[in-house]
Amino acid sequence: LNESKNPFDNVPDNVRMPAGFRFTGIKCGIKASGKPDLSLVVCDQPVSAAAVTTRNKVVAAPVILCRERTPSATIRGVVTVSGNANACTGERGAQDAAAMAQQVAEKIGCNPTDVLVMSTGVIGKFLPMPKVQAGIHQAFESLGSETTDFLAAAEAIRTTDAYRKVTFNEIELDGTTYRIAGMCKGAGMIAPNMATFLSVFLTDAPLEADAVAAMLKKVVKLSFNRCSVDGHTSTNDTCLLLASGLGRPGAKKLSSAATEKFTEAMTETAINLAKCLVADGEGAIHYMALEVIGAANDDEAELVAKTVAASPLVKSALSGNDPNWGRIVSAAGYCDATIEPAVMSLKICGIEIYRDGTPLEFDAKTVSNAMKAQVEVPIELRIGRGSGKATYWASDLTVDYVKFNSEYTT
Amino acid sequence: LNESKNPFDNVPDNVRMPAGFRFTGIKCGIKASGKPDLSLVVCDQPVSAAAVTTRNKVVAAPVILCRERTPSATIRGVVTVSGNANACTGERGAQDAAAMAQQVAEKIGCNPTDVLVMSTGVIGKFLPMPKVQAGIHQAFESLGSETTDFLAAAEAIRTTDAYRKVTFNEIELDGTTYRIAGMCKGAGMIAPNMATFLSVFLTDAPLEADAVAAMLKKVVKLSFNRCSVDGHTSTNDTCLLLASGLGRPGAKKLSSAATEKFTEAMTETAINLAKCLVADGEGAIHYMALEVIGAANDDEAELVAKTVAASPLVKSALSGNDPNWGRIVSAAGYCDATIEPAVMSLKICGIEIYRDGTPLEFDAKTVSNAMKAQVEVPIELRIGRGSGKATYWASDLTVDYVKFNSEYTT
Repeated sequence: LNESKNPFDNVPDNVRMPAGFRFTGIKCGIKASGKPDLSLVVCDQPVSAAAVTTRNKVVAAPVILCRERTPSATIRGVVTVSGNANACTGERGAQDAAAMAQQVAEKIGCNPTDVLVMSTGVIGKFLPMPKVQAGIHQAFESLGSETTDFLAAAEAIRTTDAYRKVTFNEIELDGTTYRIAGMCKGAGMIAPNMATFLSVFLTDAPLEADAVAAMLKKVVKLSFNRCSVDGHTSTNDTCLLLASGLGRPGAKKLSSAATEKFTEAMTETAINLAKCLVADGEGAIHYMALEVIGAANDDEAELVAKTVAASPLVKSALSGNDPNWGRIVSAAGYCDATIEPAVMSLKICGIEIYRDGTPLEFDAKTVSNAMKAQVEVPIELRIGRGSGKATYWASDLTVDYVKFNSEYTT
Repeated sequence: LNESKNPFDNVPDNVRMPAGFRFTGIKCGIKASGKPDLSLVVCDQPVSAAAVTTRNKVVAAPVILCRERTPSATIRGVVTVSGNANACTGERGAQDAAAMAQQVAEKIGCNPTDVLVMSTGVIGKFLPMPKVQAGIHQAFESLGSETTDFLAAAEAIRTTDAYRKVTFNEIELDGTTYRIAGMCKGAGMIAPNMATFLSVFLTDAPLEADAVAAMLKKVVKLSFNRCSVDGHTSTNDTCLLLASGLGRPGAKKLSSAATEKFTEAMTETAINLAKCLVADGEGAIHYMALEVIGAANDDEAELVAKTVAASPLVKSALSGNDPNWGRIVSAAGYCDATIEPAVMSLKICGIEIYRDGTPLEFDAKTVSNAMKAQVEVPIELRIGRGSGKATYWASDLTVDYVKFNSEYTT
């Protein structure tokens, strides 16, 4: 199972999938490469489901459909195509997304509004519907509930991703072990021939639809909304959480204390996928784990982190293993948070190089070598104003990113 | 005079400098390269002056000094060093900036607070004051009021700029021809071994200090604040406008109608320098002139333009001459302006490729060739909401930008 080059993709030998779901990934012919491009999740019974979607005002047809249909207590399936975003495709795009759900619903024998749809890939092209329809038909032939089936589903949502992105977790609550399985895709944030972020989490914990919605919002805020590859928000970003409750058939819904514990486990799980995203950022060599501490409050810490993480100068320095503190401190200075240089301090790879507004003597070569040795480069920026904190993960900016995104293809 | 490789650097043969100023640029030894690094402007009489400075909260010592000393009706000189930003240098940096002003004031025989100071270059290093002091002494020996003296002053404020950046303009008001001469520097926005934006405009028009301050604010908003290389706001950004009134000795201050005309001429002049900045952006091959029209209001148009201009995906596509409309439209979609895809349209190099939310058939090769042929690539984005408009100039993102900013130097 561990054939992936992803440093985070450790599929445990004995991992078990959440109860109540079947999955598959197949090739339907959207991608010229012939790689898998249709992913299907089917729920054995109606499940609680919620979605968090892009904040872009230019949204793809399937995003609108997911927004209209969640949160819901009666979701039965999710169908995803990769290689075509079905974005900027107007009325026809909306009809195509609805037709995909309709076909899946007929196969399952449920209401079309109980099926969710996602897509990712080229913007502004219509879906090749005959291929998609034949694909959906074929996908129902190969559904399974094994780990390999889940991995096949994760494989089929990839676009420019160098590897599939999956994560698994377990949590014991009230004497029952509930399972979480997550998949996502995303490398650059958007564009023709490229990316977008999509993610699906499945769990067999018993949660009501509203609880799933509230939880997913919290989880996304601390994981996927704390990642930066290129800062370009996609038209298609969608994250789904489906909870079957079948981890313990007949179990009551989780108590609020148990829900809180479950939210923590979900957050940890989502952070694993968030790290996969930035590690696999287009052209990325490595990424920073940027911890902002001592801000006036958590919101300001997040703003500082987001600004530093988005600076092309900071990201270029990271790719060259340059402990360039001036770029980090000055990026913090141009965001809207309360910043006072005289009380700021900075550590890179645990080595303090700037304290209370003054540069410290440090061996640049040692810090540079430490940066070079890590996939995840830890940077700690202390603001010196309060107790607000935020962690952010951001890929570096490399020559390969620019090459990849500037090559004009006719 | 026209030895520069700058496409905008046309120094007219018969250009005349504004009356009332002398200038020079010399080598004082801050730069290891041995290139000119000290620039001096001296005013024959006290002049009206104003400054617009960086919005970064981490500011260099000379920026604080300029803020404290302007607007003013009694400025007598501006001294600038390049190769060292005097930023993040604490109390000692403040003393060094003050000492530079003090020395210039002694030479002129004026109050130290009537001298302004700028610096640009490495962050976090103290100025080599003996070299700077010897340089100031030397500079006073070579002051002159000829075009070549002005060009020498412009040369000495460069850091990573590929060429000097100057512009000249004339405007006739109330029967008198007033002159404007401007210089600026800037390629990347900031960093050790690099950049920052600095600019000085000199004019012999008669303007009061408050009028200069109000005018400069308007001018900067429509020129330098509409440029984007990498979006990283510097610790040292400073733009100065000095008005001697000596274009017509004894002239009354300009009327408000004349001031308005003068502001237009100043804006045009500053836009010329703004274009130089993005044309010479680190690694830049060419730049976009992005015109956003039909936004709900001018502020929203500016926000859309700023967001599109900062997207690494849009900038990468530009460097590859890729008419990638999906990236432009979706970047507009993720800013906070009122955006409705169904009424948006887009032209690149005058060719409409997206209309009312629908992609048009177009010959990608023709548009790509048109992009390739231009230093300034015109992009027109129509929002379809009102009459708000804004123009923005942004360099492309190239492999060379990343190479330049990621190479680790010991």
